[in-house]
Amino acid sequence: MKLGQFHLSKKAGQARRGTLMTAHGPIQTPVFMAVGTKATVKAMTVEELKDCGTQVVLGNTYHLHLRPGEKLIQKLGGLHEFMRWDRPILTDSGGFQVFSLSGLRNLTEEGVEFRSHLDGAKYFIGPEKSMEIQMDLGSDIIMAFDECLKYPATDEEVKRSMDLTYRWLVRSKTAMTREKSLLFGIVQGGLKLEHRKYSLDQVTSVDLPGYALGGFSVGEPIEMMHVLVKEVAPMLPEHKPRYLMGVGTPLDLILSIDAGIDMFDCVMPTRVARNGTLYTWSGKVSIKRNEYREDPSPLDPECDCYTCKNYSKAYLRHLFLIGEILGSRLNTIHNLHFYMNLMARARKAIEDGTWNEYRDFCLSRFVKKPNSD
Amino acid sequence: MKLGQFHLSKKAGQARRGTLMTAHGPIQTPVFMAVGTKATVKAMTVEELKDCGTQVVLGNTYHLHLRPGEKLIQKLGGLHEFMRWDRPILTDSGGFQVFSLSGLRNLTEEGVEFRSHLDGAKYFIGPEKSMEIQMDLGSDIIMAFDECLKYPATDEEVKRSMDLTYRWLVRSKTAMTREKSLLFGIVQGGLKLEHRKYSLDQVTSVDLPGYALGGFSVGEPIEMMHVLVKEVAPMLPEHKPRYLMGVGTPLDLILSIDAGIDMFDCVMPTRVARNGTLYTWSGKVSIKRNEYREDPSPLDPECDCYTCKNYSKAYLRHLFLIGEILGSRLNTIHNLHFYMNLMARARKAIEDGTWNEYRDFCLSRFVKKPNSD
Repeated sequence: MKLGQFHLSKKAGQARRGTLMTAHGPIQTPVFMAVGTKATVKAMTVEELKDCGTQVVLGNTYHLHLRPGEKLIQKLGGLHEFMRWDRPILTDSGGFQVFSLSGLRNLTEEGVEFRSHLDGAKYFIGPEKSMEIQMDLGSDIIMAFDECLKYPATDEEVKRSMDLTYRWLVRSKTAMTREKSLLFGIVQGGLKLEHRKYSLDQVTSVDLPGYALGGFSVGEPIEMMHVLVKEVAPMLPEHKPRYLMGVGTPLDLILSIDAGIDMFDCVMPTRVARNGTLYTWSGKVSIKRNEYREDPSPLDPECDCYTCKNYSKAYLRHLFLIGEILGSRLNTIHNLHFYMNLMARARKAIEDGTWNEYRDFCLSRFVKKPNSD
Repeated sequence: MKLGQFHLSKKAGQARRGTLMTAHGPIQTPVFMAVGTKATVKAMTVEELKDCGTQVVLGNTYHLHLRPGEKLIQKLGGLHEFMRWDRPILTDSGGFQVFSLSGLRNLTEEGVEFRSHLDGAKYFIGPEKSMEIQMDLGSDIIMAFDECLKYPATDEEVKRSMDLTYRWLVRSKTAMTREKSLLFGIVQGGLKLEHRKYSLDQVTSVDLPGYALGGFSVGEPIEMMHVLVKEVAPMLPEHKPRYLMGVGTPLDLILSIDAGIDMFDCVMPTRVARNGTLYTWSGKVSIKRNEYREDPSPLDPECDCYTCKNYSKAYLRHLFLIGEILGSRLNTIHNLHFYMNLMARARKAIEDGTWNEYRDFCLSRFVKKPNSD
C-alpha cells in the first residue's frame, strides 16, 4: 500500500473495516489510539502498549511544545526515537489545549497567543507554528490547527469559528510540507446538523488523506453526539479514514463504529484506571469498594490481560487504597487491553459478517439497565 | 539442601560465598534484598524484579498489619500468593517502624502499644504478636521482635534495651512455631564494641538459622558502622548467614561483604530512584541536571538493564521533570539492576578468587575523590 492510502476491505451497514498506510506501517481500523500526552502513555512501557494491542499513540503538541520542546525532540531523532515507539504516532494540533486555557489566551486571525499553564510564559500558535511543531516531532498523522469552541455557543459564534477553522485549514495544508506525514482536516460546527454540514463541505473541499470530527465530547449530553455522528459520519468521504476526536466510552465506540467512524482516541481508559475505575465485560468496576476486600477472583474473568491473569481484586484494591504505582500500572494495563480487545473484536466481527451480533452483544453489556446502578 | 541450612562454598578473607535454603528455594549470598514494604516493591512487577536478578523480597510487618491486615493476606493464600512472588520473602518484626513512631508508643516488658500513623487507632505488638503476624504472612525468614533504640543513647539505655531484646528473642523463638519459616535473631548494642559483644553473646546463645545486626544506619556517622561491623561480623557464628539490616550504599555493601556480611536490605535504591538519583559505575547521577537536557546517551554505558539498553538520559530527565510514572519505573529498574549486578559480581569474584580485585575496583569507583563532587 502507498503512504496515505486507505483501503476499505469490508462494510457492515455503515461500519467499516479498513487499513490506513502510514510511514510507520499500516493501521487496522476501526482503531482506538492510546493517549501519550507528554511522550509517554502514563504508567506504561512501549512493550506493554504493544502487548495490549496498541497500534497508534497520540502525542500532544501543546504539552510537548512546552516541555521538553519539539526542537529538543527533533535533535534526538523525533518523537518515535525519543519515546522508543516504532509504530504510528498521531499528534493533535495544540488547539484543543490552548482553547481550554480560558482567560489565558488572545485569539486573532493569525492564531492564538496564550500563556503557559506552567509558568505564565507567553507563547503563540497558529496554523504554521502548529505544523512546524508537529513536523519537528516527526508525527505520522498531523492534525490541522482548528478553533475548538466552548459548549454551548451561539449560532453566530459557531459560524465565525467554522470559517476561521477553514481558513486555518488552508494555511495548515500550505505549511505542512513533510512528505512522510499525513494531514487530517477537522470538521467543527457544534451541535447543529446544518452547521456540521457547512463545516464538512468546507473541510472536505480540501483534498486530504483523512478527516476528523472535532468539538464533540465537550460537555454536551452524549446522546446529542450520537445522533449527530450518525448523520454526519456517512457524509464524510467514503474512501478516507474518519476520526472522532476525544471519544469515548466503550458504548460510544461501538455506536460510533456503527455510524461509520474508523478512528478514536480518549484519555478515559488510562485516566480512570489511575483513579481506580475499571472497564469489564460486566460493566464498570470501582476497585476500592469494600465488597472486593477479600475477593480472590480476577477483575474480569472474560479478560486475558496480564492483570486479570495474575492478580486478585483484593490485591488490586489494596494497591489502589495505599496509592501504589503498581496499582496504576495494573489498572492501566487492564483498561487499555479492554479497549484494544473491544476494537480487535469489532474488526473481526465486521470481517466475519457478524457486526450486528457483536454490536448488540456490546450494547447488552454496556447499556445500563433500569433499576441497576 | 535441608530447609534452613547455610552452605559456605568459598571464602576470601572474611568475605563469604554461601547458599541459604528456604521454603521457597535457595538464596545465593552475598545477597541484596529488595524492599517491598506494602506487598509491592514500589513501581515494579514481580517479573521485572526477577529480570533485575532479585532473589528475595522484604515485607514490612507493621505496614501489612495495618493494611490490608495479615489475616486477609493469610485468607488469600499468604503474602507470596497475594503479591504473586514465588521466591523467598523475609519480613521484619515491625519493631523498627513502631519505634520510629516517636510519641505514639508506650513500651512495656510485654511489648509496645502504639497508635497507627494512619488514623491514630491503638495497636499492640509484642514478640508473640509479631511472630503471629509474620507466620500468617507465610514469610520464609522471620525476624525476632527487638527494640530499636534511637541514636544516640546512653550506656544505661543500651544495656536495658539489649536485655529486653534478649528476653523478647527467647519469647519470639517460643512463639515461632511455623516449620517452613526460619527465625533470625537480631544483635543490637548501639555503637560500642563492648555492647555489641554483650548482645551478640546473648543472641547467639539461642540456636537459630541466622543472625542479624540491627540498629545501624540510624543516623550515626557511617564510618562508625563500618569500623564496628568489621569487628563484630566475624564474631557471628561462621556457619550461619549474617544479615546487616537496612544497609546501604554500594560502598557500604562492598565494605560489609569484605567484613563477612551475607545479607542486606535497604530502601535506598528504590526510594532515591523515584527522586531522580541513579547509581552508576561512574558514581551517582542526578537525572534532573541541565547537562542531560539533550543527552542521547544511556544513563550508564556499562549497564545492560532495560532502561540503559533503551532510553536516553534526555528522555529520563524529561520523564522525571514532568513527574511521569514511567520515570519512576525506569529509574527503579536501573537502580535495582545496578544493586543486583553489584552483588552478582561480588558472588562471582569470591568464587573465582578475585574478590580483592573486585572490592578494590568498586572502591575506586565509589569512594569520592578529593576535588571531585
